Amino acid sequence: MGVIDGARPYGVFSVGGDAPRVGVRVGEGVADLFAALGDDVFARPSLNAFIAQGPRRWAEVRSLVAELDASYPLTELTLYRPVEIADYVDFYASEQHASNLGRLLRPNSPPLLPNWKHMPVGYHGRAGTVVVSGTDIVRPCGQLATPDGPVFGPSRRLDIEAELGFVVGVGGARITPDALAEHVFGVVVVNDWSARDIQSWEYAPLGPFLGKSFATSISPWVTPLAAIDAARIAVPAQDPEPLPYLRGAERWGLDIELEVSWNGQLVARPPYAGMYWSPAQMLAHLTANGATARTGDLFASGTVSGPARDQCGSFIELTRNGAEPVVIGGEPRTFLADGDVVSITATAPGPDGTRIDLGEVRGRILPG
Amino acid sequence: MGVIDGARPYGVFSVGGDAPRVGVRVGEGVADLFAALGDDVFARPSLNAFIAQGPRRWAEVRSLVAELDASYPLTELTLYRPVEIADYVDFYASEQHASNLGRLLRPNSPPLLPNWKHMPVGYHGRAGTVVVSGTDIVRPCGQLATPDGPVFGPSRRLDIEAELGFVVGVGGARITPDALAEHVFGVVVVNDWSARDIQSWEYAPLGPFLGKSFATSISPWVTPLAAIDAARIAVPAQDPEPLPYLRGAERWGLDIELEVSWNGQLVARPPYAGMYWSPAQMLAHLTANGATARTGDLFASGTVSGPARDQCGSFIELTRNGAEPVVIGGEPRTFLADGDVVSITATAPGPDGTRIDLGEVRGRILPG
Repeated sequence: MGVIDGARPYGVFSVGGDAPRVGVRVGEGVADLFAALGDDVFARPSLNAFIAQGPRRWAEVRSLVAELDASYPLTELTLYRPVEIADYVDFYASEQHASNLGRLLRPNSPPLLPNWKHMPVGYHGRAGTVVVSGTDIVRPCGQLATPDGPVFGPSRRLDIEAELGFVVGVGGARITPDALAEHVFGVVVVNDWSARDIQSWEYAPLGPFLGKSFATSISPWVTPLAAIDAARIAVPAQDPEPLPYLRGAERWGLDIELEVSWNGQLVARPPYAGMYWSPAQMLAHLTANGATARTGDLFASGTVSGPARDQCGSFIELTRNGAEPVVIGGEPRTFLADGDVVSITATAPGPDGTRIDLGEVRGRILPG
Repeated sequence: MGVIDGARPYGVFSVGGDAPRVGVRVGEGVADLFAALGDDVFARPSLNAFIAQGPRRWAEVRSLVAELDASYPLTELTLYRPVEIADYVDFYASEQHASNLGRLLRPNSPPLLPNWKHMPVGYHGRAGTVVVSGTDIVRPCGQLATPDGPVFGPSRRLDIEAELGFVVGVGGARITPDALAEHVFGVVVVNDWSARDIQSWEYAPLGPFLGKSFATSISPWVTPLAAIDAARIAVPAQDPEPLPYLRGAERWGLDIELEVSWNGQLVARPPYAGMYWSPAQMLAHLTANGATARTGDLFASGTVSGPARDQCGSFIELTRNGAEPVVIGGEPRTFLADGDVVSITATAPGPDGTRIDLGEVRGRILPG
């Protein structure tokens, strides 16, 4: 595994006291795109103006940046959230994750609700609290249910969700599954931090709110869809057959492997290849009612979990709701403690048997 | 009832081919604020730059605009969405509405869920589809449950939700209830269009999504909180007593009356005065976990409904889930038909027994 120069993901960086601007990662450095190409869409503090230009321009720039050398080493840079987030939607597209949570949270009902195999279930999250990897995460406070009624205090069940996120470059409504690549510019690695105690008390009937809205971390690098072409596979068999608006001829399953490290210790390798719903189906569903997607929209997959214990993308699954701790640094652990650091990385198949590094999303927990 | 000049709400307008800019409503006209005051925050196509300046500047400008005359009559103007929406949150703060929906949607359970009297329950909506009054609403399509499984098609149960919305000028986290007026600039009238059939099939377990995300309409005028001081009353008794982070000394109940007209026929007068949770408690809850609010955030109250049938702010309540039609234009009607027009207006007590017009939010249904 390692960075393959061919991936050339995009980010927003500054050097010294300079203004943040768009760069492309070249090995262990970054090429300054405004300096190299002169287009002032690259002189901005986000990718939005560039990715709004559409797929022909994306392909043109991609061929230009293939020739660039790094202007600065990564060690000299500050990296920023690469995209100004318009709307943020989080899906729930892993059958294993949805089933695991159903069993834990609704033990007396079938693990999947009746709608789950008919649509990519999702909800809107908070765009204003999407932060770049490396941002410290302050433990959220909220209402915690007790036998004597709710109390207010710091979450005691702070968790992660390892996900992939998809960044919309070109907006639209009623986007068909086969049009994904005309609208989505690229992918990021996502940690959708989750306070399970706040969430479980608040979420009926309107869904997750303060249990999620305090922070969502994304990787600083956006990898273009064009760079992960070799990762494209079929999604698992879908039964029942999806309604026509969710069907397409293009394959948008992705053979991407995530790795979750807890204080430096590898605890899970969630396989994106097993995700039931494709990102093409997610975007088609999101816009099927006539809602418009916009430049800067971020939609994430929901927690990536495979069938094995060490493929779970959240700690509530990994520890069976806290009942079966994992040993981290010699200590039995269930949820996140202050000072803990979580890192999620992802890799995709590259050309000629190599692997492409999709970057890292990392965060440290501070006391609430 | 009628426009009281003292209200002086803010909006974004253009005349002829001019660029959209900020104005203040003066009777049946508008005063051009950039022309009058020269501050280039008023030369923008949204109120965001102005409202970010904070309450001292809001008060200063309010005293200046009290002296202005109209520059143009309303009949010559185009009006725009007054705010670039950052995040949009919708609450569920009417006990009558929550109880009515609970009885209709969960007939075998207590109408209020256990969390409802402990917190203002809410969720994130879609910011990118908040539109200004007058924008046509295309009937949304989506999955509709049938005995033979879901089908995809235009919603057959398209509804309204009459609400008030609160526009954040100055952001922050952990905002206390007594700090509301330091952060919220003003109020708008909201129609949160809702496709009940899409919503009922999709909403478990993550809450409303495509049943709401196609459109939310807001009035073109933002009335400053300072203009509705005479409307401030206590909220109804809250039992159990809210947790300390939801308590404040300031009274932020609002004696505002809404009126809902369906094809020109008045069908409901929902009283905002009965809302259980205040906007101050909503904003405190929204930011209690550490989440930041930003300039341009919009949070809405949820449907305003009183105890009487003709005080219901949604048609699902007004028609008892379609079982008891109302007669509109001589026809028995339940949900919205193509071509229908809905108008929601609101008034507040003004000085000396007058009433202040908070404006109108209107929309016409086009076929899906």
